[in-house]
Amino acid sequence: MSTDTLIITDVSPRDGLQNQSVLLPAAAKVELVRLLAAAGVPSVEVTSFVSPAAVPQMADAAEVLAGVLKMAPLLRASVLVPNLKGLTRAIAAGASEAAVVLSATETMNQRNINMSLEVATAVCEETVQAARQAGLATRAYIAVAFECPFEGLVESSVVLALCERMLAAGVQEIVIADTIGAAVPRQVTRLLHDLAGTVPLGQTAVHFHDTRGFGVANAWAAIEAGVRRLDASAGGIGGCPFAPGAAGNVATEDLVLLARKSGLHTGIDMDGLRVALEYAESWLGRPLGGRTMAWHRRKQREAAEA
Amino acid sequence: MSTDTLIITDVSPRDGLQNQSVLLPAAAKVELVRLLAAAGVPSVEVTSFVSPAAVPQMADAAEVLAGVLKMAPLLRASVLVPNLKGLTRAIAAGASEAAVVLSATETMNQRNINMSLEVATAVCEETVQAARQAGLATRAYIAVAFECPFEGLVESSVVLALCERMLAAGVQEIVIADTIGAAVPRQVTRLLHDLAGTVPLGQTAVHFHDTRGFGVANAWAAIEAGVRRLDASAGGIGGCPFAPGAAGNVATEDLVLLARKSGLHTGIDMDGLRVALEYAESWLGRPLGGRTMAWHRRKQREAAEA
Repeated sequence: MSTDTLIITDVSPRDGLQNQSVLLPAAAKVELVRLLAAAGVPSVEVTSFVSPAAVPQMADAAEVLAGVLKMAPLLRASVLVPNLKGLTRAIAAGASEAAVVLSATETMNQRNINMSLEVATAVCEETVQAARQAGLATRAYIAVAFECPFEGLVESSVVLALCERMLAAGVQEIVIADTIGAAVPRQVTRLLHDLAGTVPLGQTAVHFHDTRGFGVANAWAAIEAGVRRLDASAGGIGGCPFAPGAAGNVATEDLVLLARKSGLHTGIDMDGLRVALEYAESWLGRPLGGRTMAWHRRKQREAAEA
Repeated sequence: MSTDTLIITDVSPRDGLQNQSVLLPAAAKVELVRLLAAAGVPSVEVTSFVSPAAVPQMADAAEVLAGVLKMAPLLRASVLVPNLKGLTRAIAAGASEAAVVLSATETMNQRNINMSLEVATAVCEETVQAARQAGLATRAYIAVAFECPFEGLVESSVVLALCERMLAAGVQEIVIADTIGAAVPRQVTRLLHDLAGTVPLGQTAVHFHDTRGFGVANAWAAIEAGVRRLDASAGGIGGCPFAPGAAGNVATEDLVLLARKSGLHTGIDMDGLRVALEYAESWLGRPLGGRTMAWHRRKQREAAEA
């Protein structure tokens, strides 16, 4: 793998769609993933095997995964699993890669999943171990790795200890996640520096939200620190549907343009990505897109008017 | 001056308002500048002594400057001057700091001001020299320093040569401007590195537009390179009024939040800045604000709904 290549995992079908008020049918989710794969996106987080009662948007996880495996067989398709029960469902549906989410603070775990940090860590460990034994590739998110909405700034040492436990459990990829989009580049540089001796760069991924508009800046700080695996979401889908573009993931198209203008490669075709984006828009009924897309649309409009 | 302090020049009254279809009366422009100064903004580009026929939005330059000198006497207030004629008007109106704009490419100068690059450079030189002789502080923008809409990528050596001529003419501050918002952080890092031996860091400023959403990332790259003087625009005002937020300057409030979360100081109070911003909104009749402001507004709305 060239160090000039960014590996983008598009999380729009999961992190994006789980936050929408509009429910897409399984076939539409599969088509979105197929279009992303056709655009050259190498890795997609396609769904989540969480409790359907907790997240009704993901109740069709098995159907979506089966469709993706059929329609985009060459795609690296990962699924979120909250625990052994979710993993069992994922394996039954044919998953070859599973991701667990571990929030870095006590209060976030209590509020979000009603577990202590220690219990949540143990659940993630056993889930990763079981996934590895079943032959699946695994990712572990360290959520709120920079700042927690309840506890504030998170120490590097806390994140480091959780990464060590996940690596010891056998995880292949650690995803450092700024879940609430609160980090600035300086924090990204510092945390990645602090993690460098523990998590190999080749196993480190980052996951930024654009809540305060710092998503691209944070992504660049991670790239400068040597990270080449980045999560993003086509159109910046995600977050609050009432504040378009304000709180979703960093947009895939923004990272693609950033990469191209920086002499880095993503393998993603912007026109193909736009097709996927417009497909998602047709379902969600509102314009999507990071800043790049707004710029692109203005150029198109100006060309049409000229 | 501490290296932890960013000196932000707010250009909203000039770079912002010159691009609006709504014409503000001079008194409203003065009030906007006064509110910015009251918020702690240390430096404002208040108007432009260009030809009123070319830019009718700036026809009231003398009146605006006189009002600012009266209402915000402690503010560092600079004005744009295109040539000796503009400088003469600016001096007559009481200016103590003047800025010239020199585009880095032949075609941009031909298309924009109908001069060759060499003639434009000579005009800037004589204007800076005359301003210095009259006791004014001076800034020189190197516009389209990264990419020109007509000629594409701009070589560092070209920018370097123009900086040398401006410094030789006696200019105190060189403003490296990504006029069309096309740069990415890697280009910023590279150009600032290439300039380092020629333009002292203490005399280097940067001016980014957020056209593709890379404004904050570019600003951070400049800060990492040691630059502490940054242009920004309250609310990200500027650019095309038909694509809100798409093509204006990087927003002052975004840099203030970036600085605060990075342990850097700007001296700017966010609440005061918001007052200035809301005043501008009341005149322009549309919501303004960088990503930070969208986030802030959502928090306010959520708090109100809770």
